[in-house]
Amino acid sequence: MKRVKVGIVGLGRLGMDHAKNIAFNIPNAELTAACSISEEEVAYVQKHWSIPYGYTNYDDMLQNKEIDAIAIVSSSPEHCSQIEKALDAGYHVFSEKPLGTTVEECKIAEKAVERNPDKVFMLGFMRRYDPSYEYAKRKITEGAIGKPILVKATSIDPEDTIDGAIRFAESSGGLFIDMTVHDIDLARWFLESDVKNIYSIGGCYLHKEFAAYGDGDNVASLMHFENGAMAMFHSGRNAPHGYHVETEIVGTHGTLRIGSVPQKNEVMIFDSHGARKECVSGFPERFKAAYRLEVEEFIHCILEERKPSISVYDGTKATEVAFAATESFRQNTLVTLKAEEVL
Amino acid sequence: MKRVKVGIVGLGRLGMDHAKNIAFNIPNAELTAACSISEEEVAYVQKHWSIPYGYTNYDDMLQNKEIDAIAIVSSSPEHCSQIEKALDAGYHVFSEKPLGTTVEECKIAEKAVERNPDKVFMLGFMRRYDPSYEYAKRKITEGAIGKPILVKATSIDPEDTIDGAIRFAESSGGLFIDMTVHDIDLARWFLESDVKNIYSIGGCYLHKEFAAYGDGDNVASLMHFENGAMAMFHSGRNAPHGYHVETEIVGTHGTLRIGSVPQKNEVMIFDSHGARKECVSGFPERFKAAYRLEVEEFIHCILEERKPSISVYDGTKATEVAFAATESFRQNTLVTLKAEEVL
Amino acid sequence: MKRVKVGIVGLGRLGMDHAKNIAFNIPNAELTAACSISEEEVAYVQKHWSIPYGYTNYDDMLQNKEIDAIAIVSSSPEHCSQIEKALDAGYHVFSEKPLGTTVEECKIAEKAVERNPDKVFMLGFMRRYDPSYEYAKRKITEGAIGKPILVKATSIDPEDTIDGAIRFAESSGGLFIDMTVHDIDLARWFLESDVKNIYSIGGCYLHKEFAAYGDGDNVASLMHFENGAMAMFHSGRNAPHGYHVETEIVGTHGTLRIGSVPQKNEVMIFDSHGARKECVSGFPERFKAAYRLEVEEFIHCILEERKPSISVYDGTKATEVAFAATESFRQNTLVTLKAEEVL
Amino acid sequence: MKRVKVGIVGLGRLGMDHAKNIAFNIPNAELTAACSISEEEVAYVQKHWSIPYGYTNYDDMLQNKEIDAIAIVSSSPEHCSQIEKALDAGYHVFSEKPLGTTVEECKIAEKAVERNPDKVFMLGFMRRYDPSYEYAKRKITEGAIGKPILVKATSIDPEDTIDGAIRFAESSGGLFIDMTVHDIDLARWFLESDVKNIYSIGGCYLHKEFAAYGDGDNVASLMHFENGAMAMFHSGRNAPHGYHVETEIVGTHGTLRIGSVPQKNEVMIFDSHGARKECVSGFPERFKAAYRLEVEEFIHCILEERKPSISVYDGTKATEVAFAATESFRQNTLVTLKAEEVL
Repeated sequence: MKRVKVGIVGLGRLGMDHAKNIAFNIPNAELTAACSISEEEVAYVQKHWSIPYGYTNYDDMLQNKEIDAIAIVSSSPEHCSQIEKALDAGYHVFSEKPLGTTVEECKIAEKAVERNPDKVFMLGFMRRYDPSYEYAKRKITEGAIGKPILVKATSIDPEDTIDGAIRFAESSGGLFIDMTVHDIDLARWFLESDVKNIYSIGGCYLHKEFAAYGDGDNVASLMHFENGAMAMFHSGRNAPHGYHVETEIVGTHGTLRIGSVPQKNEVMIFDSHGARKECVSGFPERFKAAYRLEVEEFIHCILEERKPSISVYDGTKATEVAFAATESFRQNTLVTLKAEEVL
Repeated sequence: MKRVKVGIVGLGRLGMDHAKNIAFNIPNAELTAACSISEEEVAYVQKHWSIPYGYTNYDDMLQNKEIDAIAIVSSSPEHCSQIEKALDAGYHVFSEKPLGTTVEECKIAEKAVERNPDKVFMLGFMRRYDPSYEYAKRKITEGAIGKPILVKATSIDPEDTIDGAIRFAESSGGLFIDMTVHDIDLARWFLESDVKNIYSIGGCYLHKEFAAYGDGDNVASLMHFENGAMAMFHSGRNAPHGYHVETEIVGTHGTLRIGSVPQKNEVMIFDSHGARKECVSGFPERFKAAYRLEVEEFIHCILEERKPSISVYDGTKATEVAFAATESFRQNTLVTLKAEEVL
Repeated sequence: MKRVKVGIVGLGRLGMDHAKNIAFNIPNAELTAACSISEEEVAYVQKHWSIPYGYTNYDDMLQNKEIDAIAIVSSSPEHCSQIEKALDAGYHVFSEKPLGTTVEECKIAEKAVERNPDKVFMLGFMRRYDPSYEYAKRKITEGAIGKPILVKATSIDPEDTIDGAIRFAESSGGLFIDMTVHDIDLARWFLESDVKNIYSIGGCYLHKEFAAYGDGDNVASLMHFENGAMAMFHSGRNAPHGYHVETEIVGTHGTLRIGSVPQKNEVMIFDSHGARKECVSGFPERFKAAYRLEVEEFIHCILEERKPSISVYDGTKATEVAFAATESFRQNTLVTLKAEEVL
Repeated sequence: MKRVKVGIVGLGRLGMDHAKNIAFNIPNAELTAACSISEEEVAYVQKHWSIPYGYTNYDDMLQNKEIDAIAIVSSSPEHCSQIEKALDAGYHVFSEKPLGTTVEECKIAEKAVERNPDKVFMLGFMRRYDPSYEYAKRKITEGAIGKPILVKATSIDPEDTIDGAIRFAESSGGLFIDMTVHDIDLARWFLESDVKNIYSIGGCYLHKEFAAYGDGDNVASLMHFENGAMAMFHSGRNAPHGYHVETEIVGTHGTLRIGSVPQKNEVMIFDSHGARKECVSGFPERFKAAYRLEVEEFIHCILEERKPSISVYDGTKATEVAFAATESFRQNTLVTLKAEEVL
C-alpha cells in the first residue's frame, strides 16, 4: 500500500487536528514532518506521535525530499505565499481556507497552481466533505429536487466563544470573510453559478466591540446569481445554543435542509425544559468528520493522479464575493460584480 | 337546522369544558339544562351562559321532556346508574369514561343499552376523536402500514399535577384503570382484537404514597391479543416535561407514531438549553379538540340516526382488561382472560 | 350573555369559513345577515344555517339596523370602499387582508377609521392570531430571546394549487403583495419597527406564466428596518410537500422558529420513504384556528370597547412595503422608503 | 508511541471492518496478523494492507509471539473456545458478541478470564461505545434524569436484508439471542441491576419462515429487575425504513431517548412524500463509530493496564436473559431467574 508522506505547517488548534488525522486516521497518509514557529509544539508532536522531522522554519521543511505533500494550516495571511513556495518546490498542497486575505493574494496562488499543473492543489472548504453536505450534493446531482433555485444559509458561532471572536476581530476580515465565505462557497457549489448582485446589511446588536473594525455581530446578505438563482445568508457570532450551521437548498421540485437542529448527537432529553436536543459546541465538533474526509480526498487525489472538485478558483471567487458583501454592508449599497471579475 | 338539546350532569373541570363545547362550539347542539350537586356551579352556568334549566338533582333533570340527550360527566361511580336511568327515561346518552368502576357496573350499562336499541349511547374515549389518532386509524384502514401487529403506548401525567393525583389515588382505581384504560381502548381499536394474556409490573419509584392503595407511580404491561398481535403499555404520574401521551402502531409494512414529542405548539426555542419544544401541560390542552369532536360525533349520530363506532362493550372490555392488568401487577402473575369473559 | 350580530359580505371559500365560524364557533357572535352577488350562495347559507337576512346588494345590508358589525370577505379591490361605507354607516368592521390594492385605497380606509374613533376596525392578518405565532410574540415580550434582530420568513403555496395561482396571477398583485405581505406584517410586529431599505430578487423558475404579470414563482427580499433590525423573505408558489409557512425570529439571546416542519398533525410515518411527516395542504388547514380566533378577538373588542392590537395603519404599511419590494424586484434596484412615507 | 500488535480471526463482513479499523483508524494499534479459513480473504488483507502474517489455522496464529492481542470475529459457536485458547496462550482478547451460544460456553470463557487476571478481556457490545449511548450513560451518571426506572428498547433489522436473516435463522439462536441481547445488555448497563422476571410474546407476522426454528419476525418482552426497575423490548426483522435501533431511559426526573428517528444524516428532504429523513441502512452504518471506538478502548485498556467497563460476566448474563426470554416466548410462560443463576 502506497502512502503519501505529508509535512504540515501550523500546529494551532486546527493544525493539531489535521496533524492527528494525517498521522493516524487516514490509511494512505503518514505525517512525516511538522513545522511551527513554536518549538514546543513541534517537540510535542515529534515526541508523542513519533514524527521523524520537525521544523521551526517553513523553508527548511521545503528542502525535505522525503515529503510528497504539504498541508498548510498556518495563519491566513501566510497561506498564499506558502502555497506558492510549496507548489514551486514540487509538492502537492492542501491549504486551509481562506485561500488568501486579499484577492491579490489569491491571484498569486492561482498562478502558482497554473504553473504546476501536475501537482494536486486543494483548498480546505471542508463543509463540502461533510457527509450530510456531500449527500445533499449527490441528491441534487441525481435530480431529487429539480433545478436548485435558492440557497438559504445560516452560520452562527456560539456565544460562549465570543471573547475569542472579539480578540480575533481585528485580523478576521469580518464576518463575511471569516464565516459567510463558507456559505458562499456552498451556494456556488449547489447553484453551479457565480454571484452577480449583492446587498448586505447587519449590525452590532449585542457586542459593540465589532463596530470598531467595520464588522457586525450579525450580518445578512441577499445575492442574485448569473443563472438567475438566489441565495440568502445570515452569519452571526452569538448563538446561545451552540454552533449553528444550517443550509437549505430550494429546488424547483423539492427542498433539502441540512442541520435544521444542530444536534450534538442522537439523544433527546425530556425534562423540565421540554423536549430538547443539546447542540454542537463549535466547528471542531460539527465538522470533525469533514476535516478528516477532505484530507483523505486530497491524499486519494495524489495517489490516483486526479484533481479535487474544489479548485483554487473556487477560493478566489468566494473571497471576491465575501469582499463585495463586506463592501455592500459597509457602504449600504447594492454591489454588482462584473462577469469578468469572477472569471 | 335541527338542534339537539342536551342536559349535562357534572360541572367539575371536565364537565365545564363539555358544557361550554355543547353550549357554544357544536353547531347542532344546545345546552338546555345543567345539573350538579353544587348549587353555585349550576347558578354560574345558568347566569353566564343563559342556560334555561338548572338542577341539583339528577332525577329531576330526567323529568324535563324538552331535553333530547344527557351528557354524563359526574364522578366515575355514578356513571352506570346514571346511564341506565337516562336511557330508560328515553334520552340519548353520552358518558365520560370510565364506563364503570367495576365490571358488574358495566354490565348494568350494557343491559340498559340493549334494552334501548333506538337510543344513541356513546362512551367518551376521546382519544379516538383526536385528529392525529383519527388520521392514524384512517391510514391503517387504507392499508398504509399493512397489518398492525404491535401497539406501544405511553401515557404519563405531568409531575406538576402530582399532588392532585395523590389525593385522587384512593378513588382512582389505580394507574391501569385510570390511565392505561385509554391505551387499552386504543390498542383494541388499532389491532381489532381482544386481549388474551397480560403481564404487568411497576412500582412507586418516586412517590411512595401510591403504594398504600396497591398502586404505582409507574407501571408497565405486556399483552398478547387473540389475533396474535401485541401491545406494550407504560403509564406514569410524573413526567417533568408535561403530559406525555404517545402511541406507536407497528404494522407489517410500516409504522405510525403519534405524539413522539408532545409539543405545546409549533414553536421551537433555541437557547442555552439547546433546541427545544415546550410540551403540553395536561389532557385538557392535549385533547381539547378531541373533547369537542367526540360530542360533535355524538350529536351527529343522534341527528343521522346511526351508532358511534365506539360501543358500550368497548367500555366493558377496556375495563376488564384494566382490572386484569391491575391484578397481574398486584399478584406478579401472568393473567389469562377467558375468551368468554371478553365477549 | 350579550351577542354581537354580524353581517358578512363575500361568500367565497374563505367567506364561507368566516360565516361558519361566526354562526357556530364564536360564543358571543351570531351571523345575522349574509351578502353576496351570488343569489345561490346567499340562499344556501340562509337555508342551511337559518340566517335571518340575505342580500345580494351590499348597500341594502347596511340599512339593517339589527346588525352591529360587518365582516368583509369580498374581493380585494372592494375592501376599502366597503370599509368606508360600513364605518360611516355606524358599524364595527372586520376586513380580510389586504387592506387595499393600492396605497391610495388604504388611505381612504385610514380616514374612515379616523372619522369613526368609537368603532372597532380590525384587519385580518390572521397569522398574528395563530396560537404558535401568538405564543412566540408572548415569549418575545417576556424577554425570552432578548431583543429581536432578524426575522426569516418563508411562505410557499403548494404546487398542487398552482393552476389557481396562475389564473389568479393577473389580479393578485404579485407574490410580494399577495403572499409576502403577511410576512412583512409579522416582521413589523415582531421587530417593532418599520422598513427602511429593501432589495428584492426572484424569477419564474418553474412556471413561466407569472412573467407576463411582472411576477415570479419564487421571490426573495432582504429588508433593513429603522431600528437596525433585519428581515429576509422567501415567498413561492410551488412547494411539492404542501403549504409551507415558516418564521424565525432571531434575538440577541435566543431564537424562536415557528413551523419548521409544516406538519399536518402529530403522526410520524415510518415506511419505505423514511421517517416522515405529511404536511398541511394549504392556508385553510394551517390557519383554521387563526381564522376563528381573529374574529373572536374582533367580537371581544366590540363587547369590551377596546381596540385590537392590529390597526388600519398596519395594513397600509405592509401594503407600502410590499409595493416597494415589488418595485425593487422589477427594477433590480435598492429601494429606500422615506420615513414620512411609512408614518 | 507504543503500539499494540493485534491478530484478528474471522474476515467476514464485520471482521473486515474490524481489521480495517485496527490497521488504519486506531492510533495505537497495528494489525500484525490475520486469520481466516478462507485463504483468499487472508491473501487479500495481506496484499492490500501490507499485513505481515497470515494464517488459515487459528492455533498457528497463537504461536506468533510478536502479537499482543487477539480480536475474535469468527462465527459465534467458536467464540468461547477461541477466547479460552488465546487467554491461556497469553494474549489480551477482544471478542465480538455473543460471548457464547450457550450459557455453558460462557462459563468456559468466564473461567479462562478468571485464570488470566492480568489479561484484558473485552466483549464487543459495541452499542455502549456509540457516542450517543455513551453520552446518555454519562448524563445518567451525572444525575440528569434521577434514578433510571424503565428502559424501552427497539431493535429492528431492515426489511431489505430479510433474505439473509431467513438464511441465518437456523443458526442465529433466534431474535432474542441474536438481537435483543444488545438491548438486554444496555438495559442492565443503564438500570444497574439484573433481570428477575421475564414475559415474552411474538410471532411470525410477515415472514412465516422463522416459525420452523421456534423464532418470530417480531417479538416483545417485559422484564422486571432485581432493583424494581423495568424494561420493555421489541425486536424485529422487517423495518421498511431501514435499521431502527431506539432506546429510551425513563428516570424519576427525566427521560433520555436515543435514536428516535434513525436518520442517515442531517439532511431533511421536503418533497411529495412530505418532510422526511432517510434512515440508516443497517448496523454497519449506524454503529460505524462504535465499532471503532470499542476497539480503541480495548487498546487503551491494554496500554493503560486497566479493565474495560464491560466484563465477561456481562456477556454471560445477557446470554442467560436472552435464553430465558426465548423460553418464555416459546412456552408462553412467565420465567423467573433465580438470583444465583445471574450471579
